Amino acid sequence: MADDHVQSSGRMQAYSDAIFSIVATIMILPVAHTEIPKDKNLREVIFYQLLPKILIYILSFFVVAISWSAHVWLFQIIRHADDVTTLLNLLIMMIITFLPFTFTLMGTFPEFVLAIVLFSVCIIVLGLVQALVVLHVFRNPQTMEESIRNSENMTAVRNALLLRVLVNAILCTFAAVFAPVTSVISYVFLVMILFSPNIAVQLSKLISKCSGGRFQMSQEVVRRGKSYEMEVNKERVECYSDGVFAIVATLIILDICEKDIPSRTALKYEYKNDLVAALDHDSSVFLAYFGTFATVGLLWYIHHSLYHHLQRTSRLMTMFNNFSLAMIGGMPLAFKLTSLYNDTDFYNNERVAIQLSCVIMFLASISQLAIFVTALFRPEQDLTDSVKVGGQSHYYLLVKLLVYPTVSIIIYIISLTSDVLSVESFHVAQLGTPVLFFILWLIAVKIQRNVQEVLNPEEHPPIQEGINNENQRM
Amino acid sequence: MADDHVQSSGRMQAYSDAIFSIVATIMILPVAHTEIPKDKNLREVIFYQLLPKILIYILSFFVVAISWSAHVWLFQIIRHADDVTTLLNLLIMMIITFLPFTFTLMGTFPEFVLAIVLFSVCIIVLGLVQALVVLHVFRNPQTMEESIRNSENMTAVRNALLLRVLVNAILCTFAAVFAPVTSVISYVFLVMILFSPNIAVQLSKLISKCSGGRFQMSQEVVRRGKSYEMEVNKERVECYSDGVFAIVATLIILDICEKDIPSRTALKYEYKNDLVAALDHDSSVFLAYFGTFATVGLLWYIHHSLYHHLQRTSRLMTMFNNFSLAMIGGMPLAFKLTSLYNDTDFYNNERVAIQLSCVIMFLASISQLAIFVTALFRPEQDLTDSVKVGGQSHYYLLVKLLVYPTVSIIIYIISLTSDVLSVESFHVAQLGTPVLFFILWLIAVKIQRNVQEVLNPEEHPPIQEGINNENQRM
Repeated sequence: MADDHVQSSGRMQAYSDAIFSIVATIMILPVAHTEIPKDKNLREVIFYQLLPKILIYILSFFVVAISWSAHVWLFQIIRHADDVTTLLNLLIMMIITFLPFTFTLMGTFPEFVLAIVLFSVCIIVLGLVQALVVLHVFRNPQTMEESIRNSENMTAVRNALLLRVLVNAILCTFAAVFAPVTSVISYVFLVMILFSPNIAVQLSKLISKCSGGRFQMSQEVVRRGKSYEMEVNKERVECYSDGVFAIVATLIILDICEKDIPSRTALKYEYKNDLVAALDHDSSVFLAYFGTFATVGLLWYIHHSLYHHLQRTSRLMTMFNNFSLAMIGGMPLAFKLTSLYNDTDFYNNERVAIQLSCVIMFLASISQLAIFVTALFRPEQDLTDSVKVGGQSHYYLLVKLLVYPTVSIIIYIISLTSDVLSVESFHVAQLGTPVLFFILWLIAVKIQRNVQEVLNPEEHPPIQEGINNENQRM
Repeated sequence: MADDHVQSSGRMQAYSDAIFSIVATIMILPVAHTEIPKDKNLREVIFYQLLPKILIYILSFFVVAISWSAHVWLFQIIRHADDVTTLLNLLIMMIITFLPFTFTLMGTFPEFVLAIVLFSVCIIVLGLVQALVVLHVFRNPQTMEESIRNSENMTAVRNALLLRVLVNAILCTFAAVFAPVTSVISYVFLVMILFSPNIAVQLSKLISKCSGGRFQMSQEVVRRGKSYEMEVNKERVECYSDGVFAIVATLIILDICEKDIPSRTALKYEYKNDLVAALDHDSSVFLAYFGTFATVGLLWYIHHSLYHHLQRTSRLMTMFNNFSLAMIGGMPLAFKLTSLYNDTDFYNNERVAIQLSCVIMFLASISQLAIFVTALFRPEQDLTDSVKVGGQSHYYLLVKLLVYPTVSIIIYIISLTSDVLSVESFHVAQLGTPVLFFILWLIAVKIQRNVQEVLNPEEHPPIQEGINNENQRM
């Protein structure tokens, strides 16, 4: 019975995670769908046309990610989601899916008061609805997590939660008020959203102090279980990340379905009803697709291996993860550029497209490595035994995490120094990387077996079991 | 330790579910993005231009859903996913995301041999990779679910699994072979994919019999736990459904972001830098968005309430669920048509758009009702106590499930008989429906409280607890 309802609240959270991650990621499409003429200098296009859009994309990705972490923080207090909470959560989702529109509007017309106000109103309404959820849950304590229901100072917990969900709304109120005066001040407030978790913590301390203890704010809610430092729990980070990986993989095929299937008339007049010729015309697109998918898939695989060995995640690690995900969301752009410049010599555009792909791959994978390095500073709390320094899978995980940073640096350097590198060979390299991981796995199994034989020369353990132990830890 | 690895395999499955559901749903986009001139007769456009595309969409939705259920069936035998299984699963995902392309190609050029062969090759490769997973898992039995590892006849289980994952490949081999001769026979084989779960069962019985017991096929693998009749378990159906709901909700805003943000030049010359006027021009789109989101969100909410009370799901129920999801995937089309014909009088197009939306809403919601009705035939196995006939929440759930069929029929009839109905009032009605559900909840709580007072007139239980019990069951 009780389990039933954890399930119930769990499904609502998983659904919310999926929506948050998709909303964050589809913001790349206005960037990826920018019309780029084939005969222009890609380097200039990137700096003058794409870079502003990319920055807006990364900003919006972080704004959504921050809203998501507030949402996770709020819903981890709920054990049973009743109908009112579920309906309010749907309202929250409606506002979240509308965010990309207001954000794109603000990105397109940054100097218009209306654009700033519309975005701010979205965030304010979001905060107010979340506050309603807090109030509803605290009026019905039986829907709450037991640890909070039994906590000594429930009012303090409620106040902390209210402040946490309302801090963005407060910042946006200021942004909206100042918009008619000067948009610069508005943007200062809007950028502060990125630091809202920290602002909430500092504000709560300040209010507790200034009110002489009358308005107590308790952070204890976040200290139970696997989460600490106002941090979301690992399972929900995984769920959110999976959403990003899944939508990125499918956004690419979406483009192919819409653009690379010839129309019946084109087939008749351009290709004389020869479907092979028509598809061959776009063959580079398919190679680009499989190459890009292999990269996205393997980055998911590394993410999966890494998070499997994390015991908890700090705020810094989630920040690295968000940055990594934002970069992975950029893969559709890399796909588009590499498939666009597959056969052109203008301005070295082909090599520039490869270089941009390398930069995206490097930033995405180095951020994953950064998560592991951060965890190594607090191995006792953050890591499972086998990947701590000296653990049996430590080097295997480290090497996995180093593959993509290394590969992308090497390709980048080759593309700088020589012009043997074509888009085709780049994609073939992408497609070949899984083989690298398979070889890595074989080596890891081999070493593991040797170590076991050295340690227990008499025992001769069943070889399958030896492999199994290794696998289980990978 | 053991729990760790259920988690590990669980994450891979959740990720796969997300990809499957997104792939199934984005196939609506070629339909929704069909260019429809505003001044044409929508009824004719629907019958001659949209209907063939819609049929292809529904077919492809079911093909993906069937592949997904085979995938679920395969992976429920795996307890620990090792690196090889994970990498093979990524390969499966790569093929799955490529399916929409081959399917669209086949839909566009149904008479071309190449199109049939390409699609068939996709399914064949998919089957072969899944067979590799089966062989790998059975060579490493320690990665399997314990119930299967300890089963008496593992070879029979393996044979049944191999047949199940290869049956589509076999059908497609025939389709590909017959394609150069006549495409009609090919399509007969391709349509048989829709019945492949049944075909696999019948084939396995046949093979067992004909070989005189030498090739045994065991169905026992599917009879453990919550699943029966080769059926997937409830949690994965929920996960898959969530993916569809989430992507539908976000596909709509994607269109708005790409089309309804005016360019700087348009703003300058068409609207004289008046952003309010420019947005007002598209105001109907925003109303359509909020109305559609409310509908999708509430259909999720009903789905959530229904599946919360299901104890297990039969194959028929999953078929109804897939049909319901396919219809919900059609909501972006309804959104597009209603927002396109908001102010036009040509050929009653406005009313036709509303009628099509009603049909989609009706089919989506009546299929949900059909799931419940099916479950009512085997209440002991399928339903929790509170929603069985006579249970305290039986009528509440029934009324919830009846809301959308009723509302859509009423709107449809009104649109047939009078012309007072505009797209605006339709969307306002959509937006008003959540209020209906809130009122329903209030009534349910009220009744629940009265019943408790009648039953225990002396006890005077804490009222909050009374609400709580009700909530927990909803």
